[in-house]
Amino acid sequence: MEKDQLIAEMKKIVGEENVLHSKEALYAYSYDATPGHIYMPDVVVSPGNVQEVSAIMKFANEHKIPVYPRGSGTNLSAGTAPLKGGIVLLMLRFNKILDLDLENLIAEVEVGVVVQDINDYVAPHGLIYPPDPGTVKTASLGGTICENSGGLRGLKYGITKNYVQGLEVVLANGDIIHTGGKNVKDVSGYDMTKLFTGSEGTLGIITKAYLKLVPKPEAQASMIAVFNTLEDAGNAVSDIIAAKIIPATMEILDNSSIRTVEDFMHVGLPTDAAAILLLEVDGHPVIVADEKEKVLEVLKKNNAAEVTLAKSPEHKEQLWTARRMALPCLAKLRPTTFVEDATVPRSKLTQFLKIVTKAAKDYNVTIGTFGHAGDGNMHPTIVCDLRDKEEMERVHKAMDVIFRGAVELGGTLSGEHGIGLGKLPWMELQHGKEGMNAMKAIKRALDPNLILNPGKLIGEC
Amino acid sequence: MEKDQLIAEMKKIVGEENVLHSKEALYAYSYDATPGHIYMPDVVVSPGNVQEVSAIMKFANEHKIPVYPRGSGTNLSAGTAPLKGGIVLLMLRFNKILDLDLENLIAEVEVGVVVQDINDYVAPHGLIYPPDPGTVKTASLGGTICENSGGLRGLKYGITKNYVQGLEVVLANGDIIHTGGKNVKDVSGYDMTKLFTGSEGTLGIITKAYLKLVPKPEAQASMIAVFNTLEDAGNAVSDIIAAKIIPATMEILDNSSIRTVEDFMHVGLPTDAAAILLLEVDGHPVIVADEKEKVLEVLKKNNAAEVTLAKSPEHKEQLWTARRMALPCLAKLRPTTFVEDATVPRSKLTQFLKIVTKAAKDYNVTIGTFGHAGDGNMHPTIVCDLRDKEEMERVHKAMDVIFRGAVELGGTLSGEHGIGLGKLPWMELQHGKEGMNAMKAIKRALDPNLILNPGKLIGEC
Repeated sequence: MEKDQLIAEMKKIVGEENVLHSKEALYAYSYDATPGHIYMPDVVVSPGNVQEVSAIMKFANEHKIPVYPRGSGTNLSAGTAPLKGGIVLLMLRFNKILDLDLENLIAEVEVGVVVQDINDYVAPHGLIYPPDPGTVKTASLGGTICENSGGLRGLKYGITKNYVQGLEVVLANGDIIHTGGKNVKDVSGYDMTKLFTGSEGTLGIITKAYLKLVPKPEAQASMIAVFNTLEDAGNAVSDIIAAKIIPATMEILDNSSIRTVEDFMHVGLPTDAAAILLLEVDGHPVIVADEKEKVLEVLKKNNAAEVTLAKSPEHKEQLWTARRMALPCLAKLRPTTFVEDATVPRSKLTQFLKIVTKAAKDYNVTIGTFGHAGDGNMHPTIVCDLRDKEEMERVHKAMDVIFRGAVELGGTLSGEHGIGLGKLPWMELQHGKEGMNAMKAIKRALDPNLILNPGKLIGEC
Repeated sequence: MEKDQLIAEMKKIVGEENVLHSKEALYAYSYDATPGHIYMPDVVVSPGNVQEVSAIMKFANEHKIPVYPRGSGTNLSAGTAPLKGGIVLLMLRFNKILDLDLENLIAEVEVGVVVQDINDYVAPHGLIYPPDPGTVKTASLGGTICENSGGLRGLKYGITKNYVQGLEVVLANGDIIHTGGKNVKDVSGYDMTKLFTGSEGTLGIITKAYLKLVPKPEAQASMIAVFNTLEDAGNAVSDIIAAKIIPATMEILDNSSIRTVEDFMHVGLPTDAAAILLLEVDGHPVIVADEKEKVLEVLKKNNAAEVTLAKSPEHKEQLWTARRMALPCLAKLRPTTFVEDATVPRSKLTQFLKIVTKAAKDYNVTIGTFGHAGDGNMHPTIVCDLRDKEEMERVHKAMDVIFRGAVELGGTLSGEHGIGLGKLPWMELQHGKEGMNAMKAIKRALDPNLILNPGKLIGEC
């Protein structure tokens, strides 16, 4: 189809003011937060309601035009990059919190709402919406549902999937369907809600969701612990879980991350430490006091060189600086930053960190690793320069070692950022040909013309 | 295919001793715990390992022979009834707990293991596997995964799906795939684990699972409360949740159930009460004490006529008799028992119970209702005589009113028993034509010859 005709058709559906097609606008939507993936779309369309989405999909399906749903574009696996041109479907006009049902503890929210805004909205009622990806203040709900985002509270509170109870979805053919709902228990039919959650926009366009809310924990205790060996830090993580304590947060930073943060921030981090752990337990005040003591005991037993308890919320924020600044500081080192999220069973954490450290040394690349230790969800962050072909070859070799290592340890390519384009080459390694075929069959069943975010997650099919 | 040839082929794969085909044997596997669904299979086959399952599926797929996976046959929606003849695939030789990983709190279990046996196995380590359907002592793990079973602890601890982290599945074409695993977070590809869980054997044959375990709660407090009106009981349920207390158990019995149990058991139940609630809070001893007081306050505020606290575990078992005996006592009233499990958002509980009571009166049928009040998951239990055609017409009319009522209240046809054959007529009412088409497309994608438990869950497709 001619580009002009496509633009004219889109204007008919959503109105002229909601269609962008200038060179500048198309460039602005040609990439997301993932390095190395820039593809020009033909048009950027902002529908205002589910009927408009349905009309767009019907048209796109009939004419086999690719459609790339997009929220705030904070994606780290190129999931929103418009690989094959066509329509960028910008969902930010879906910006309303439609209902807060306090009897059933359910919020009904459109997908363009920023995740932090949901939390701000429910906070006066003593409730929280637990998923908190690093981008919580900018990411749209829809993006976090499509990617099934995690975050710092994932260990105790789970991830996005655990809180999405129902969806409104527009299918490739324009059909509008409703999955799940406000029912705590629902086994009527296949679990389409969970299938669409984490499907990276390849199976349907999500327009709104029913979100489960939980009571805000009454108390917290936070601390930071310094370790001289990776083994000790890894063992401390395992021993805390084995003691049947599930901290709300249990984050790790390796030496490379610690040194980088300290270089930029000068906050007094121990630059010779092998690792630091950041821990928070929360809940009823009595449990918090109890678990705090048990955690301190485990840290001591595993040779923590130093443990600092947060004396106030402000002090905690200060201690948390190292974790919050790890990515921004690492990103300042070099022009290009790849944040990976390979994840292993938590008992394999030390082994995995050693694989990462060895890969960095073997291929002479800079990798800082931090992440969610309690989940086994690490963020090996490779900083480099995309323009340096020789370096990029080494980077990809190191990535290959890291991903293969994770899968061999019974891990997964992605704990929370999704597959998108970045991790496609390793998908068959994890899922086998048979597993990939099964996923491709589902893709073709729901999107026979392959117009929904084509080329992502399962690749060509 | 000739029956003799099928039997001979099956013997080649699993050995003669694992193939049943006598008339008596076939009759024994022609039905499950659902009334009115008896269909003779051609052969009953017990594979001993995943390769044998794969070989059976390859053969069945090539010759388009229906395959009905089956565990203990305790199914309440005719999910295991061999509707179109063919092969009953008996999975009870998959009877091993393969591994207990205490560092990751994961058990690796074959599908033929009885659910209670998993709990007995992990109890010495202070762990529990929370899903506890009423049939916990007889149901096989595989059946509970296929049906995504719930139970009395569902409100606080969730249902089977929340504890299944990975699966080994044999697809219709014989392919063996592995989904998920020991990783707490995993967003690599579509969530096939959750898709197979609750798919009622229509998408693949599950052979083993990775199950998440949790620490056993340290303390419990149990009580029983008597109400003179359904409104008061319903409001008490809503108010407890609104007070941000999530009891481990919050069960309700209506007057009809109370009277029936008392008639058979003579345990001193208040036969003129409109409803009784059974409650249990659990966790850290301090929280339990705290929540117990808050629950007592809410019960009082909502005019509980009487509240009895359990003084000991034995006393609790005594108080729980009413709940445990509700179904067996109701079942004794008449030859046929339909246990339904329509579920509504918990705030709609009172409204739903009124619909059930009115349906019983309008169509002159006997319905006792009990169930998981905190989940909004009710068990309207219709007792009747399948041989009485006129009565059965009234029963189906009452069922129709109940299911339509649930869906109109934003509820679902099934909270934990599955759709199977029993609830098929109402599926389109809940999911719409578009929703049904999407599910049928997935079924055809994974099982193009429609040999896996054909005719169930989504009907013909």
